[in-house]
Amino acid sequence: MEMKKYIAEFIGTFFLLFVGTGAIIVNHLAQNALGHIGIALAFGFVIVVLIYACGHISGAHFNPAVTLSFFAVGKFSPGQVAPYIISQLLGALSASTVLRLLFGNLYDLGGTFPSLPVGQHLIGVSFAIEFIFTFFLMFVIISVATDARAEGSFAGLAIGLTVFIGAAVAGPVSGGSFNPARSIAPAVISGNLAHLWLYIVSPVLGAVSAAVIYKFLEVPQLRKQCSN
Amino acid sequence: MEMKKYIAEFIGTFFLLFVGTGAIIVNHLAQNALGHIGIALAFGFVIVVLIYACGHISGAHFNPAVTLSFFAVGKFSPGQVAPYIISQLLGALSASTVLRLLFGNLYDLGGTFPSLPVGQHLIGVSFAIEFIFTFFLMFVIISVATDARAEGSFAGLAIGLTVFIGAAVAGPVSGGSFNPARSIAPAVISGNLAHLWLYIVSPVLGAVSAAVIYKFLEVPQLRKQCSN
Amino acid sequence: MEMKKYIAEFIGTFFLLFVGTGAIIVNHLAQNALGHIGIALAFGFVIVVLIYACGHISGAHFNPAVTLSFFAVGKFSPGQVAPYIISQLLGALSASTVLRLLFGNLYDLGGTFPSLPVGQHLIGVSFAIEFIFTFFLMFVIISVATDARAEGSFAGLAIGLTVFIGAAVAGPVSGGSFNPARSIAPAVISGNLAHLWLYIVSPVLGAVSAAVIYKFLEVPQLRKQCSN
Amino acid sequence: MEMKKYIAEFIGTFFLLFVGTGAIIVNHLAQNALGHIGIALAFGFVIVVLIYACGHISGAHFNPAVTLSFFAVGKFSPGQVAPYIISQLLGALSASTVLRLLFGNLYDLGGTFPSLPVGQHLIGVSFAIEFIFTFFLMFVIISVATDARAEGSFAGLAIGLTVFIGAAVAGPVSGGSFNPARSIAPAVISGNLAHLWLYIVSPVLGAVSAAVIYKFLEVPQLRKQCSN
Repeated sequence: MEMKKYIAEFIGTFFLLFVGTGAIIVNHLAQNALGHIGIALAFGFVIVVLIYACGHISGAHFNPAVTLSFFAVGKFSPGQVAPYIISQLLGALSASTVLRLLFGNLYDLGGTFPSLPVGQHLIGVSFAIEFIFTFFLMFVIISVATDARAEGSFAGLAIGLTVFIGAAVAGPVSGGSFNPARSIAPAVISGNLAHLWLYIVSPVLGAVSAAVIYKFLEVPQLRKQCSN
Repeated sequence: MEMKKYIAEFIGTFFLLFVGTGAIIVNHLAQNALGHIGIALAFGFVIVVLIYACGHISGAHFNPAVTLSFFAVGKFSPGQVAPYIISQLLGALSASTVLRLLFGNLYDLGGTFPSLPVGQHLIGVSFAIEFIFTFFLMFVIISVATDARAEGSFAGLAIGLTVFIGAAVAGPVSGGSFNPARSIAPAVISGNLAHLWLYIVSPVLGAVSAAVIYKFLEVPQLRKQCSN
Repeated sequence: MEMKKYIAEFIGTFFLLFVGTGAIIVNHLAQNALGHIGIALAFGFVIVVLIYACGHISGAHFNPAVTLSFFAVGKFSPGQVAPYIISQLLGALSASTVLRLLFGNLYDLGGTFPSLPVGQHLIGVSFAIEFIFTFFLMFVIISVATDARAEGSFAGLAIGLTVFIGAAVAGPVSGGSFNPARSIAPAVISGNLAHLWLYIVSPVLGAVSAAVIYKFLEVPQLRKQCSN
Repeated sequence: MEMKKYIAEFIGTFFLLFVGTGAIIVNHLAQNALGHIGIALAFGFVIVVLIYACGHISGAHFNPAVTLSFFAVGKFSPGQVAPYIISQLLGALSASTVLRLLFGNLYDLGGTFPSLPVGQHLIGVSFAIEFIFTFFLMFVIISVATDARAEGSFAGLAIGLTVFIGAAVAGPVSGGSFNPARSIAPAVISGNLAHLWLYIVSPVLGAVSAAVIYKFLEVPQLRKQCSN
């Protein structure tokens, strides 16, 4: 029964990376055929789709920052944290591996890097942008997916559109990760680990902050735990 | 209990401005990576997301013109008008402040200005466009979100797509505000207050007009007050 | 009570024209800021929005071909056909008038014309394209909005996306009307009546054909008449 | 009663091809007016629309790989497989025929071909991409449309967005078919059968694999068979 959840997290994170970072690679190979907004739509819509396809199996985290945040506010079983994160990382690493086999070790396999120099604060700005957008993402997730008063059936649409927004707006600044698994896999498989720490630390801090703050806005009766 | 609503209005209006005006700023910094339609999608989809994330807490106004319109037709408690509008303005001002800290005082921080000269009527056309599109926006809001006969669960999608439409079509003419908070914050924090009156007066008149006209179309039994 | 329906048809068709043909005009004035797909999104999403805002009042036709088709298959009261079509035409004419007052008599006020020469059959191809896409549109409308087995709450989304598809694909060929009111108003107010007959005859034939064919696919018990 | 299902499969597959491959042809004729993302939106949104319009009649397969996969895991009546696939092929062939009559035998009638040379593995990469994306598509279909725990009303949106993702990301590599009927019809009617085997074998293998794997994730009680 638990194994089904891990498989769903593996498959979901695989397709998040395969589609999203695959879009970046194909866009390079095909003379900008998708464009920045096309890539952002791929990232956002794949999340919409995966939540409707896997939400009823595993809760559709696909993101260690999300899993840790649910755990931090008591909405996720402690014993499930490690297997969830391991399943996500294995799914992401598998996707980056398949992309490397198909297309070669090109374009850092779609990894994330601080890319928009603003004054002298390249790293600081990217850290802040990743923090703020992951805060926003987790705020939306915890509200729409766990608050019994919300229109829960729209969770997939709302969360996926949040990812689109982040990819579109934060993308040119920080790469738009909001998800350690999404950044770790292309970095490890391509061998370019530059600034990887930023995409682990900042999303986790942003997501946990949102979960903690939402505790003050919800009412005690929650609809569900976040793993099914 | 009321404080939760103010916090939701603060957070929602913060992210409306951070995402929407942030998209304008990033688009300038990144060689038009988003494009006009990408910015309009950011404005529209952030409203979709915020309504599903905050609608059950505060009613998801994020706009003084909306709050005043609900009040004008007796659907909002008089004592709540001032704290709602103050929360919205504080959220918007905070977003413009953070954007200025991150990126500098560039591009008027995404503020709105009459921008499409049509004959000699630059201001008049912008005033009319803001009036008509805010009328449309409030008509959709009051119908989908408060009429018991409507498909209320789709309110977030319908209202957000209305904002997209306005940003896409009115954007090149008037800037596409429809929301005094959305225009006041970048004007105040950037220091460019040109034509700001237009973006306060016209949206409020347009929104109140729609609310009054919808009174003739609805049936007496309404589903709900508009603050929860 | 009936007057409410006429007002909803007037307002809905006004905004369909104001947004859709307004998008064409603004796109010309603003150096192709929206682009072809941006205009198609405006047409499609305004239909999504208007169905959720007005569907529960008037059934959200906004199109004489739709009204006539529902009438042709016995799903619409004969006495309502004329006032519905008059309300739609008045709404459309009002929108074209306001656009002319705001922007001048430019770009045929967003009217529709056969525009893609394919061999020697410019008119014939446009006639066929308008027929086929209006058939498709009415097929979707009558299925999703009146068949009790369908997911009726998604009618607005499905019908609006059909309009987007038509505007995107048929637009470069025939202008993408599928709606006599959408073509009559800019033609009359701009004074360019060229080929207008095509945009009246072909959509009506296409829509009625779809309604007749769907009769063979439905089951006898229908959920509702199509005016509320 | 069964004939209604075949008609729905015929009409649905007709419009899938007419809209999707029509978008490719019109885009060529109209100087790239839709762009790659516009074509992908046409393919994705036409699936959204067709599922809401035909799902309650035939189950909305429109794809021999989908029909065979449902059959392979015991969710579809053996006697229905042949008539479903024949209806789909006839619908697709009719659409390609009408497009050829309207526009001439241009642009391979929107057929699919391996198009992105990546190293020396043009065919192998296309085969793999078609396999992986059809796996993804069928995984989403079988989860959202048949698992009683899923938000079934969102099936049309989720499945259509999956097709958009595939068209956007796989399109520049393999053409983005995921559906033998979608590739056979333009190949046969245009006379260019190059690599057609790939678009029959790979999607069927990918879809059946997904259906088999999903068997391990579902719970025994399924909501419905997949033909109504």
